[in-house]
Amino acid sequence: MPAEKLTKVRVVGSGLIGTSIGLGLIQRGVVVEMIDSDPTSASLANDLVGGATVVDPELVVLAMPTSQLSMVIEGEIALNPHSTFIDVGSVKGEVEVKVKTISALSRRFLPTHPMAGREIGGAASARADLFQGRSWILTPSQDLEQSSKDLVLELINLLGATPIELSAADHDRAVAKISHLPQVAASLIAKQLTGTPAEWMELAGQGLRDTTRIAGSDEALWKEIIYSNRVELQQLLINLQNDLGSMIESLDDPEKIAGLIAAGRAGRALIPGKHGGKAREYSFLPIVIDDKPGQLGAIFNECAAMDVNVEDLNIEHSPGQLSALITLALSHSDADKLSSHLSSIGWNVHPIRK
Amino acid sequence: MPAEKLTKVRVVGSGLIGTSIGLGLIQRGVVVEMIDSDPTSASLANDLVGGATVVDPELVVLAMPTSQLSMVIEGEIALNPHSTFIDVGSVKGEVEVKVKTISALSRRFLPTHPMAGREIGGAASARADLFQGRSWILTPSQDLEQSSKDLVLELINLLGATPIELSAADHDRAVAKISHLPQVAASLIAKQLTGTPAEWMELAGQGLRDTTRIAGSDEALWKEIIYSNRVELQQLLINLQNDLGSMIESLDDPEKIAGLIAAGRAGRALIPGKHGGKAREYSFLPIVIDDKPGQLGAIFNECAAMDVNVEDLNIEHSPGQLSALITLALSHSDADKLSSHLSSIGWNVHPIRK
Repeated sequence: MPAEKLTKVRVVGSGLIGTSIGLGLIQRGVVVEMIDSDPTSASLANDLVGGATVVDPELVVLAMPTSQLSMVIEGEIALNPHSTFIDVGSVKGEVEVKVKTISALSRRFLPTHPMAGREIGGAASARADLFQGRSWILTPSQDLEQSSKDLVLELINLLGATPIELSAADHDRAVAKISHLPQVAASLIAKQLTGTPAEWMELAGQGLRDTTRIAGSDEALWKEIIYSNRVELQQLLINLQNDLGSMIESLDDPEKIAGLIAAGRAGRALIPGKHGGKAREYSFLPIVIDDKPGQLGAIFNECAAMDVNVEDLNIEHSPGQLSALITLALSHSDADKLSSHLSSIGWNVHPIRK
Repeated sequence: MPAEKLTKVRVVGSGLIGTSIGLGLIQRGVVVEMIDSDPTSASLANDLVGGATVVDPELVVLAMPTSQLSMVIEGEIALNPHSTFIDVGSVKGEVEVKVKTISALSRRFLPTHPMAGREIGGAASARADLFQGRSWILTPSQDLEQSSKDLVLELINLLGATPIELSAADHDRAVAKISHLPQVAASLIAKQLTGTPAEWMELAGQGLRDTTRIAGSDEALWKEIIYSNRVELQQLLINLQNDLGSMIESLDDPEKIAGLIAAGRAGRALIPGKHGGKAREYSFLPIVIDDKPGQLGAIFNECAAMDVNVEDLNIEHSPGQLSALITLALSHSDADKLSSHLSSIGWNVHPIRK
């Protein structure tokens, strides 16, 4: 456990991320004050969070677009001369540069990026559990004091996230590929829907919905992220454009089409298990159950009795249907063990999928 | 209700779609025989479905890639001289042409396309409820007999889907935009992940997962769909390529970036409610539990005791973390009831999200 103890936190910026941090901290017994340049937003956030006036906080969270950091940072240092600072912006190279130019900051400012969000913003969308199980990236400078780092690690721990250290440059390259590229692509795919007849749109299935979900994101937020990381993003967009060109040229050749689709499947397979954690390979055990209360509980009781840990669960059923298909994600050995056991006591277990 | 009555159906092709049709029909009391060019597949499908030998079926479902229709269609007409026929392929223009060339077929063959699927194929992935709440497109010719059409409408009704009539040309234009374009784009986005360091991939969030989910699809299936609909798809891919070019040229201009992201959000907003069918609204109840066997079982026992039916469940946790966040999808009233109950007996229940 860190030596420092987090008791008072000032959150400057009362949007989705700031308010979610406030909500999560209050639940863990930390006193929080929510601040915003817009008094109405600050008032709403303090009401939602249960905020109170905080003097001399151990930690100041600057939860605002990176372009606005410069406007507040000098004032915040003057106001909180003993505090540690973090930001939560999506691009870290420019923050690193900014911190280096302010000598009073370099030992107690830690640029961070929580890998969590929603496609809807604002304090009203905030959730205390927004960071639960997510990665929270730190890009510390060499000057950073250990006590400051310990405070930030305690914050991340309190919010249920997992800290990951990267250089600012690696961070920006990584998020260009795994976050900013898919955002731009999803937006441009969704843009193609403009003008489509409503009766055609009614045919849309889950594939279109999933592929374009993040296209619902806010342009005010994303214009800044994309602009800030444009150097890393540019080549990735050119590569995608070239591959689109290859597909267009391959439309008369089924085998070339298959090659591009297969390359996509191979790329997709690089995404690890769930939740931004370490890649885990699961076995999937399908079980057909009666769709009524008590069935799931009975299965989980059998899991507990066999010391089997359920990693994930999917339930598929339709209204009016009498049975449901549940699929448990398990370690390979747990899947084998549970499958044999459930079969032996009469459950309708289907073959394991690896 | 239609005058004809569906009692016996022959399903030729024992993959995901054919076997799901078989499963759904058997549950509604229809006798089904599953056929496949591969005897092992046919045997598996008949076992899964509970199939039986069918003579003189009212309806023959040709559930195979369109390229294979020609190989079986003459034999099937000879074998089933009184039957109505449908196919279930993803592109309809070429089927319309094919049917017109066989005079014995034109009055009793209805090209169809159920808007349902999974990114995993094969009989083992089949589900009786695959078509529940989905659209099922019909592209009837003017020659089609009403009695044949009634039989097909009964099939669609039995499987819980909603029939929608379109011309074959409109169908192919619509699916190019809402299905084939997102598939190609998702595959090419996923292709960009090739060679990404594993530690960067571990940062992947739900956005990348959703955007590339359908990139996991089978290239053998999709090469044929894309090739078959290449005429409609080509211009859509060129448009997307041009918009990518605009984004690349706009990277130095935040307002132009915002314009493209906003256009994407507007396009996304054209997609109607969920599942293309009847919308179901859930409440979501987050609960933080210790990540160990027995916890889920205990919760489901409480659900059963309170007569609460769990509609869906999401589990989020990271290796090494001691707690997990589970989110139950429930009816609004069940969510209120369960939340109060679990709180009162000491579970760590978070506020309900609607």
